[in-house]
Amino acid sequence: MVLLLHGPNLNLLGERDPSTYGTATLDDLVAATGAAAAEAGLALEHLQANAEADLVAAIHGARHRCAAIVVNAGALTHYAWSLHDALASYDGVKIELHLSNPAAREPWRHVSVLAPVVDGTIAGFKADGYPLAIGAVERLLDRRRTAGP
Amino acid sequence: MVLLLHGPNLNLLGERDPSTYGTATLDDLVAATGAAAAEAGLALEHLQANAEADLVAAIHGARHRCAAIVVNAGALTHYAWSLHDALASYDGVKIELHLSNPAAREPWRHVSVLAPVVDGTIAGFKADGYPLAIGAVERLLDRRRTAGP
Amino acid sequence: MVLLLHGPNLNLLGERDPSTYGTATLDDLVAATGAAAAEAGLALEHLQANAEADLVAAIHGARHRCAAIVVNAGALTHYAWSLHDALASYDGVKIELHLSNPAAREPWRHVSVLAPVVDGTIAGFKADGYPLAIGAVERLLDRRRTAGP
Amino acid sequence: MVLLLHGPNLNLLGERDPSTYGTATLDDLVAATGAAAAEAGLALEHLQANAEADLVAAIHGARHRCAAIVVNAGALTHYAWSLHDALASYDGVKIELHLSNPAAREPWRHVSVLAPVVDGTIAGFKADGYPLAIGAVERLLDRRRTAGP
Amino acid sequence: MVLLLHGPNLNLLGERDPSTYGTATLDDLVAATGAAAAEAGLALEHLQANAEADLVAAIHGARHRCAAIVVNAGALTHYAWSLHDALASYDGVKIELHLSNPAAREPWRHVSVLAPVVDGTIAGFKADGYPLAIGAVERLLDRRRTAGP
Amino acid sequence: MVLLLHGPNLNLLGERDPSTYGTATLDDLVAATGAAAAEAGLALEHLQANAEADLVAAIHGARHRCAAIVVNAGALTHYAWSLHDALASYDGVKIELHLSNPAAREPWRHVSVLAPVVDGTIAGFKADGYPLAIGAVERLLDRRRTAGP
Amino acid sequence: MVLLLHGPNLNLLGERDPSTYGTATLDDLVAATGAAAAEAGLALEHLQANAEADLVAAIHGARHRCAAIVVNAGALTHYAWSLHDALASYDGVKIELHLSNPAAREPWRHVSVLAPVVDGTIAGFKADGYPLAIGAVERLLDRRRTAGP
Amino acid sequence: MVLLLHGPNLNLLGERDPSTYGTATLDDLVAATGAAAAEAGLALEHLQANAEADLVAAIHGARHRCAAIVVNAGALTHYAWSLHDALASYDGVKIELHLSNPAAREPWRHVSVLAPVVDGTIAGFKADGYPLAIGAVERLLDRRRTAGP
Amino acid sequence: MVLLLHGPNLNLLGERDPSTYGTATLDDLVAATGAAAAEAGLALEHLQANAEADLVAAIHGARHRCAAIVVNAGALTHYAWSLHDALASYDGVKIELHLSNPAAREPWRHVSVLAPVVDGTIAGFKADGYPLAIGAVERLLDRRRTAGP
Amino acid sequence: MVLLLHGPNLNLLGERDPSTYGTATLDDLVAATGAAAAEAGLALEHLQANAEADLVAAIHGARHRCAAIVVNAGALTHYAWSLHDALASYDGVKIELHLSNPAAREPWRHVSVLAPVVDGTIAGFKADGYPLAIGAVERLLDRRRTAGP
Amino acid sequence: MVLLLHGPNLNLLGERDPSTYGTATLDDLVAATGAAAAEAGLALEHLQANAEADLVAAIHGARHRCAAIVVNAGALTHYAWSLHDALASYDGVKIELHLSNPAAREPWRHVSVLAPVVDGTIAGFKADGYPLAIGAVERLLDRRRTAGP
Amino acid sequence: MVLLLHGPNLNLLGERDPSTYGTATLDDLVAATGAAAAEAGLALEHLQANAEADLVAAIHGARHRCAAIVVNAGALTHYAWSLHDALASYDGVKIELHLSNPAAREPWRHVSVLAPVVDGTIAGFKADGYPLAIGAVERLLDRRRTAGP
Repeated sequence: MVLLLHGPNLNLLGERDPSTYGTATLDDLVAATGAAAAEAGLALEHLQANAEADLVAAIHGARHRCAAIVVNAGALTHYAWSLHDALASYDGVKIELHLSNPAAREPWRHVSVLAPVVDGTIAGFKADGYPLAIGAVERLLDRRRTAGP
Repeated sequence: MVLLLHGPNLNLLGERDPSTYGTATLDDLVAATGAAAAEAGLALEHLQANAEADLVAAIHGARHRCAAIVVNAGALTHYAWSLHDALASYDGVKIELHLSNPAAREPWRHVSVLAPVVDGTIAGFKADGYPLAIGAVERLLDRRRTAGP
Repeated sequence: MVLLLHGPNLNLLGERDPSTYGTATLDDLVAATGAAAAEAGLALEHLQANAEADLVAAIHGARHRCAAIVVNAGALTHYAWSLHDALASYDGVKIELHLSNPAAREPWRHVSVLAPVVDGTIAGFKADGYPLAIGAVERLLDRRRTAGP
Repeated sequence: MVLLLHGPNLNLLGERDPSTYGTATLDDLVAATGAAAAEAGLALEHLQANAEADLVAAIHGARHRCAAIVVNAGALTHYAWSLHDALASYDGVKIELHLSNPAAREPWRHVSVLAPVVDGTIAGFKADGYPLAIGAVERLLDRRRTAGP
Repeated sequence: MVLLLHGPNLNLLGERDPSTYGTATLDDLVAATGAAAAEAGLALEHLQANAEADLVAAIHGARHRCAAIVVNAGALTHYAWSLHDALASYDGVKIELHLSNPAAREPWRHVSVLAPVVDGTIAGFKADGYPLAIGAVERLLDRRRTAGP
Repeated sequence: MVLLLHGPNLNLLGERDPSTYGTATLDDLVAATGAAAAEAGLALEHLQANAEADLVAAIHGARHRCAAIVVNAGALTHYAWSLHDALASYDGVKIELHLSNPAAREPWRHVSVLAPVVDGTIAGFKADGYPLAIGAVERLLDRRRTAGP
Repeated sequence: MVLLLHGPNLNLLGERDPSTYGTATLDDLVAATGAAAAEAGLALEHLQANAEADLVAAIHGARHRCAAIVVNAGALTHYAWSLHDALASYDGVKIELHLSNPAAREPWRHVSVLAPVVDGTIAGFKADGYPLAIGAVERLLDRRRTAGP
Repeated sequence: MVLLLHGPNLNLLGERDPSTYGTATLDDLVAATGAAAAEAGLALEHLQANAEADLVAAIHGARHRCAAIVVNAGALTHYAWSLHDALASYDGVKIELHLSNPAAREPWRHVSVLAPVVDGTIAGFKADGYPLAIGAVERLLDRRRTAGP
Repeated sequence: MVLLLHGPNLNLLGERDPSTYGTATLDDLVAATGAAAAEAGLALEHLQANAEADLVAAIHGARHRCAAIVVNAGALTHYAWSLHDALASYDGVKIELHLSNPAAREPWRHVSVLAPVVDGTIAGFKADGYPLAIGAVERLLDRRRTAGP
Repeated sequence: MVLLLHGPNLNLLGERDPSTYGTATLDDLVAATGAAAAEAGLALEHLQANAEADLVAAIHGARHRCAAIVVNAGALTHYAWSLHDALASYDGVKIELHLSNPAAREPWRHVSVLAPVVDGTIAGFKADGYPLAIGAVERLLDRRRTAGP
Repeated sequence: MVLLLHGPNLNLLGERDPSTYGTATLDDLVAATGAAAAEAGLALEHLQANAEADLVAAIHGARHRCAAIVVNAGALTHYAWSLHDALASYDGVKIELHLSNPAAREPWRHVSVLAPVVDGTIAGFKADGYPLAIGAVERLLDRRRTAGP
Repeated sequence: MVLLLHGPNLNLLGERDPSTYGTATLDDLVAATGAAAAEAGLALEHLQANAEADLVAAIHGARHRCAAIVVNAGALTHYAWSLHDALASYDGVKIELHLSNPAAREPWRHVSVLAPVVDGTIAGFKADGYPLAIGAVERLLDRRRTAGP
């Protein structure tokens, strides 16, 4: 199982600032990600939450149950240290995903408090970032399987 | 419709540190604001929430429904970038309101992460800030009407 | 008596960068403020000066004579500590006013050296900020009268 | 009544990074704290919450009802200014507690936004910090009683 | 044509610090990337250079000739502003790639001077980042074709 | 043997700023600490010194002889890196103690150069911090005994 | 008409620190600049003022009357944001001029608050900077004429 | 001749914040300083100005005419670099004087931009600082006379 | 002989971002500079290099052979301390030249590491900066000749 | 009794860097200070110590015995927070004295950790600072006597 | 084999700023170092390069071939992170060498980006630093031999 | 005579953290240094002190008596400005020595307050640094002798 997480305001995708975030809605993105996951033989679970605590709880719930988490935490990326700690406590594959390229936006978006505890980051590819993230999950799971116990 | 939002701890108004925040309770303030709004021919909706996510959701709910938002976000003013993003996605009139004058208090209260995305700020007038904010809403809505489509 | 003060370059209002400052001229703004004051039973005195020292002297002259000062100090807002000290020495009602929203402009406009010594701030409402400031003066004077000696 | 509060991710205690946090589970810690409190003639109430807002509400609910709060806020310690304001509005005994020694960890854990508004801090003693905190509560309550009205 | 660029010290891949960079040699990575590109119907050109100037020249040479650049600039990522300017002058698809996750390493690796001028970043997936980058190139080129002239 | 160390100016306790440090004299505190230690079956040795070097020497002398050190270093807490190094070279239980809550005082008192090398910190409980520190020593020694060789 | 402006202390030129500023007096510089302007078919107007406000007023007076301003603002260069705003409101050619090379002097002279709003800067050429500035004015006016309406 | 200079707001001495500045009026201080100077066989000239430019001009006027300058520049002390440059160009004895102790007040008063170019500073002695400054002038002039040409 | 140096990416002039850098190509600029030099009786040598080391070597080669260097170092201006040291070791006339006004662009372009070791700077005049720089060279060489040995 | 304190290295006065500190030896300065004190009817006690702890002890010893302390702490001025705390605990007149003008020297000498807790500072007058300090003591003691109990 | 590396501008030794760097030429230094190496039974290879990339390549070439590298990187010391990474990938003895004492020069020379990855640093001994570095190489190689496999 | 100085905690060498400081005891190091000095015809004097003041006094005592000082100041290296001033007042050869490489340790060890006033620094060679320092002393003394009076 792969858990896809979206943080605050991402429920507005498609409506909010399309030049930055693209025109796909959240449903579109989840559907496309689900399709990509299915193609890779992976099931997808999705949660969008505006509350940091709900994302923390979802990560806790994924322990021992989901093989990977893909997280686009929205603005929480930049100050939510509790989310950092939750991800740090999760042993599966962890991917940080951004639609836009935060380094090309306001200074406060240049630092991610999640980045130090994820396997990798995919940023700036708008809707295309989602199937890329599934591709990354697939590859990292393969690596782990190969590395063996 | 005008949406009046209060952030965490503002439910304690009247009890908490009256020299800083004045002696009016939150109910008093909401009632006074409602009266001022009514006088201006505007309906008022109110939410006090301790959770950033609830305020974010209320702002989402105001899209295409409320003409203006007046927000006193309490301590969230100084770190809640998700609230910033929610306000940025809202096209109506937006006013940041503070009972006290944050610039005369602790250094961490000197920066507002909401200020860059609101129309204007009214700070330091204790209970009087509320009818002033309604006055500002009224004027800004007039301007927008005048400017036409 | 209410003293309305304008700092450097504000004599150019209406001509200078209308998208930031609006299209009203300084005369328009003073006239509108005078009208609002008159409605509130208050006389208005006005000074625009490019020199910090002239504003300092005007504040000194207002001691024991004017009940309130409304000051839009222009760029002096951000470095004129002598103006800060002059306002600190004045006991009447003090309101800091800005046409634009400084928090949405260049970083050096994000800090006000006057803010720590005023009663409150009204920023971002363009020409509408003036009658709002008079409304604030009226209310604060009422409060002081009520509080008694 | 003493209110014991735990912030986000502390529900994972015993499972998460035992070299940092020790091997006791949250239930173990609460039980031990309750026992220590009982010995001191104090009742204990406990809440673990991942949401800052829930902790804020619990502190509000403790006003006029609980004599003391012991709070281990987890990562919220370092950015949750609303929690700071909630604690500031509470007049009882307030103790900040940490299992690990934050000063020996990442730089972002070196500053506590809660520290300026608590009576004292106990950090670094792992599970032993809990009975120590109850001991501190007991002593501070004695002092207050002695100081009289 | 896709241009794959590697900066200084990356010729040592496979020999240098495998726990950080993985065990694949540069030849392995280029071969795998070429295979992925071929599968996507794209030709691949490769340059590894220790000199910033050689990378700058290669980017100039790619103007009007290559549809995309994938660049893993090594340590130059963090101070080579001339490389930034070269990428800024290139209109094709631009992807910044890192084997390791710079955010989890020394502080000076936390800032990329290239990030503000690329389409997107893929970091932390070791050897798997290369086919992912080709996948991203393929998708971004599709988008551009679809968007039309 | 437990070594209790006091840094500069703490010989003035009881006389100096009682609202910050309480009314107990240093002799009172040492006596109370000794009594608490005796109750726990621990002998107490005490040194107050104004010189950093004397504290450093006392820590050296405690190596292989004292099971624990409790240190209230006064202002040295904030700049005495030699004291940091001395504590780092000591393998027994180490507790940093403060009468006042440094986080609620001047900014230069917010950082402790000793904190990174102690087991834990107890701060803000005035005279009550001393028996709490002895309680902490007792518990940490128990833990070490239990952990075995 | 070209307006040449000198800020505070520049009336002392020739007397003050000749190793930094050269031996020409202000009169010498103005005469040489006037001669250079005349050669270019341009009239020159000059003002030296110690007061920022006088320079602001002179810039206002140059609007719609002078084609260019050359300004050596002395120490005001480094903190006079009102002068910055005045220059920003002026649409003609604007040149910042320094006798010395501020980058080779004290750190506070390394930042110019005027630089962001001028066309260009000429610094470090002592007396020779003046005819160079006139040359620059001439060329920039030519460019503007050529660009047409 | 000794020139005594006072900066902005110091005309309010005696009225403004007596706990900080003492109860003497500016006239009192000037009279006392004149008397002290007379006793030392020195004539005194005095100027209080709110404008930095007037102080700059007074310093220029003192060149080759006054043997010493004593300057209490008020808030200009902290940002008036033109005043710094004016003092730097003056070769006589230069003394910076403050009634209050700026180091014990707000952080922005902790740095003096005048200090690097004066002979010495006398701060914190309220009205007594004036005769002390005259004493210092007297002594420094003696030293210069003794040192000879 | 005057040596004209261009740093990385300036070979793209005319193609790259014309709104910032103008429409002249590098060949145009060199030709115009050569013509201006010839008029002043000066020969011109030119090098454009993307490598800092090539510029360093060119400066070394100019020692004892060229009377002046005019350098537009592109992005190297902001971090190339080796270029700084090379210029510091060169005794002839040294002029830093920029087409655009770096102070009006991104923050990292606001500091020049070359500025402290050049005679002067000419910035912001686009193509016109080149003949101005030749004019400056001519004048500075005249001054040096006049000053004699 | 007035206590005159000198910190580390001041025993070398007269030998060490006379252009900064003057040519008087420490004995000369103490003698001159003693003479000035005697003239004012004050006895003088003197201590030069290289150890911060010795200065701290001397300040403790002056409590309830000396009416004033004049302290030239040498380099300790800039980091000796224990000396700050010792001075803070002393209720008599406290004067910080420097031979040189620290603001005109290296940056680390620009901040005094003692300044916030003294009555006033006298800096930059070389040997003349001593009799000035005695004059200041005399005046401040007079003030305190006049103010009465 | 010992590899001696010199960075940019060091080819000018003997000509450039002798008060800082001494009067020996680079050839003198290399000859003296070679002699010292020969005495220690070590062969010496030397490269001076102005290009960071050439130094990087030389370090790569030394892998598995040279027992030690002595590097005087000139200004590259302070920003060349690629050189840092190259040295980090080299397992032999590594010594950073400076002719002058960078800590006594401009602030930007106070930080070395190479220091964290070398065995040790020798700085400030002008020409004498070279035989000292050879002595250090000899001793470190002895230690490694003694430590055995 | 060469004076070898050791700062606080260095008496523990051999016992304390051998992976950082090596296994030699202080006696071993002093003996080896004495032997190296004897070979060079130099006598050695040694002091280890935990107190900054004792080191300051030893440096004073070495004036006019010892030809050189070699100082390993331990943690005092990073904050002991009085030691800086003492070394600054000493005219003989001065060498700063560190066993470990401070640049590869905690950030607070990266800055030396002694470095600006020594001839040179030798760091990171563990026990081998001592004979290297003696070699450096020998060479620097030779240079001084050669330079003559």
